[in-house]
Amino acid sequence: MKLRTEPLELHTIFEFRIAHGARRAHRNTLVRLEHDGIEGIGEAAPSHYYGETEAIVEAAFAAWAPVLGDDPFALDEIDARMDQVLMGHGAARAGLEMALHDWIGKRLGQPTWKLFGLDPARTPRSCVTLGMASPEEMERKLETVRDFPLIKVKLGAPGDVENLKRIRAGYKGKLQVDANTAWNPADAVRVLKQIEPLGIELVEQPVPRGDLDGLQWVRERSPIPVFADESAHTLADIGALAGRVDGVNLKIMKTGGLREMQRMIHAARAHGMKVMLGSMVESSLALTAAAQLAPLVDYLDLDGHWLVKDDPFDGAPRERGEIRLGDRPGLGVVPAGSPAMAVKAGR
Amino acid sequence: MKLRTEPLELHTIFEFRIAHGARRAHRNTLVRLEHDGIEGIGEAAPSHYYGETEAIVEAAFAAWAPVLGDDPFALDEIDARMDQVLMGHGAARAGLEMALHDWIGKRLGQPTWKLFGLDPARTPRSCVTLGMASPEEMERKLETVRDFPLIKVKLGAPGDVENLKRIRAGYKGKLQVDANTAWNPADAVRVLKQIEPLGIELVEQPVPRGDLDGLQWVRERSPIPVFADESAHTLADIGALAGRVDGVNLKIMKTGGLREMQRMIHAARAHGMKVMLGSMVESSLALTAAAQLAPLVDYLDLDGHWLVKDDPFDGAPRERGEIRLGDRPGLGVVPAGSPAMAVKAGR
Repeated sequence: MKLRTEPLELHTIFEFRIAHGARRAHRNTLVRLEHDGIEGIGEAAPSHYYGETEAIVEAAFAAWAPVLGDDPFALDEIDARMDQVLMGHGAARAGLEMALHDWIGKRLGQPTWKLFGLDPARTPRSCVTLGMASPEEMERKLETVRDFPLIKVKLGAPGDVENLKRIRAGYKGKLQVDANTAWNPADAVRVLKQIEPLGIELVEQPVPRGDLDGLQWVRERSPIPVFADESAHTLADIGALAGRVDGVNLKIMKTGGLREMQRMIHAARAHGMKVMLGSMVESSLALTAAAQLAPLVDYLDLDGHWLVKDDPFDGAPRERGEIRLGDRPGLGVVPAGSPAMAVKAGR
Repeated sequence: MKLRTEPLELHTIFEFRIAHGARRAHRNTLVRLEHDGIEGIGEAAPSHYYGETEAIVEAAFAAWAPVLGDDPFALDEIDARMDQVLMGHGAARAGLEMALHDWIGKRLGQPTWKLFGLDPARTPRSCVTLGMASPEEMERKLETVRDFPLIKVKLGAPGDVENLKRIRAGYKGKLQVDANTAWNPADAVRVLKQIEPLGIELVEQPVPRGDLDGLQWVRERSPIPVFADESAHTLADIGALAGRVDGVNLKIMKTGGLREMQRMIHAARAHGMKVMLGSMVESSLALTAAAQLAPLVDYLDLDGHWLVKDDPFDGAPRERGEIRLGDRPGLGVVPAGSPAMAVKAGR
C-alpha cells in the first residue's frame, strides 16, 4: 500500500468557541491510500485538547507507513502492526482506517454502511452546534439555524443560563447542551436544574473527563439525561462508564476508526446506554466516514458541513442536519460540486 | 430471496451426556437461501434445553420466509422485519443469518472472516469435549483424545472429582470443566476447591442460569476462573454479567447469528472479560460459521466435527482441535470429500 498525505485546511464560518478554547482555522490532514489501482481516502482532524497537532499526525503516518503491508482487507492485522510501532493517536489512526474502509468498499463495489449490514433508513437527523458567543453574536447565529429541528448549544461560560433562555425564546426546535468539562458536579446540578424548564434533551460532559464519580453524582441528581464525551475514548471507557451515565458521544477521531466506534456502540447497548456520534471540525470526508455507522445510534452531531465554509468534499451531510447514506462504493465521498448521488432516504 | 430447508441428521460417535440430558441422534436443519443465482447455506441446531425442536425451527422459517425481501446485504433490515413476525428463536435465526453471510461472501468473492477485517493467524485451538461417562467408558474415550492439547470435561454427576482425577492421571494437556448449571453455589465452590490442584483452566456455568448473584458468589470464592454459558444469550446479558464472571461462552445458536455474537464479544471486552466460542452438536457448517469470529476470542469449543460420525460438510475444523480459516468465499464450507482448500495457518 502506498500512503500519501496532504494538508486539508478548513475555515469555520464563525469563530468556533467552546469551553476548551476557540479557533477559526483548522489544519486537518488528508490521507490517500493507493493499492492495486484503487485509492481510498481519509481525514485526520487532530484535537489540540488531547495534545494532537498536525505535526504529530504527520509523525504518526511516517511511523506507520512502512508497516501497512499489502492487504487493505487485513484491518486487525494492520492495527496490530501499527500498535507495535506506535499506539494510540486517534485522529491519525482514524484517517488511515477511513482510507482502508474506502478502499475496501471501492474494491468490492459496495458502500461501507452496506458492508456493515446496516439499514440507512434508520439514520437519525444531526443537530447543528452553536459555539459560545456574545448575546449579539448568538442572535446573528441563531438567525441562520432557526429552521434546524435540533440545536446543540455549548455552555460553560458566565451568562450561560441567560443565553440559553434567549435562544429558547426564539427557537421552537429541540435543544441539547454541551458543557465540555466546564463545571464541577455541584455547579453542574445547579445549572441543569435552572435550565430544565427550557426543555433540554440531554447534557454532554458536565464535569472533567477523569471524574467518573462526578458524572455519576450529577446523573443521580440531574433532571436532564447525562452523556459522556471527553470521558469516552475507547472500549474500556464504556466498561468504566456503565451505570454512571445515560449515554455517550463517540467521535471517530477519539476512537481511532469505525471499528472501535462500532465496538463501543455495542458495549454501550449492552448497558442500555444511548449513543451519539459526534465530530470535531471536519470536512464532509470524515463526517461521512462516521455517518457510515449512523443507523446504529440515537443522536448525531455531524454538522461540520454547515460550520465550515470551504468544505472540499461532498458526502452524507445534506441540508438542515439531514444525513443521507448513498449508494456510491466505499465512503461515498466525492469532490464538492460532483453530480448528485443516488441516495436512500433517512428517517 | 428463496428459502428452502431440509433435515440434517447427525449422529455422535458416543452418546453425548451432559447435566441437562443425553442424546445420540440430533436433528438439525439445513438452510438454503438462493438469490440472484447464488446459494448461501446455513444450519440450525435446536436446543431442547431451551425448548427448541425441529418443528419449532421449521415454524420459524415458515414465519420468516415471506418477509426476507430482495436484498441479502440488508442484514439489519431483515432482522427488523423478522422481529415483526417472530422474535427470538436463536437456532433458526442463526441458520438464516449464516446463509446470508455465506451469500454475501460468495457474491463479493471474499471469505466472511475477511469481510469482518479479522486476522486468521489469531485463531486459537479448539478443545474437545468429553461428555459424562462411567469410569470404563471414560477410559475408552480418553484413549481417543490423548493427543489433543485441550480437553473440556462435563461435570455435574456423583463421582465427578474421582473421574477428573482419573483423567488427569492419564492426560498431560490442559483441562477445562463445564457443570452445565448442575450445582448450587456452595457445592460449586466445594468441588472447585477439590479439583483446583488438578490444574483446571476454567469452569463453565457452575450454577443455574438465572442465578447471576450465585455466579458472582462462586467467582469471589473460586480458585478457578468462572465462565457463564447458559446465562449468556444476548447482548443485554453481557451487561448483567459484567463484574460477575471472568468470561463468557458464546454460541451462535444462542445469539442467533454472527453479528449478535460480535456485539457480545465487544461488550465483554469492554469489561476485560475473556471470551469462548462454543457450539451445540453441529456439523462443520455451523462450526465453520461460528469460527469466522474465532480470531476475536481466547478459547474455542468448536469440536462437533470430531464428535459427529456423519458430518456432511468440510470447513474450518481440522484435526486435534485445529481450526483453519481458509480463502474460500463466504463461510468456506463444502460437501465432505471436496478437494483440500487453500488455508491460512492458525496460531
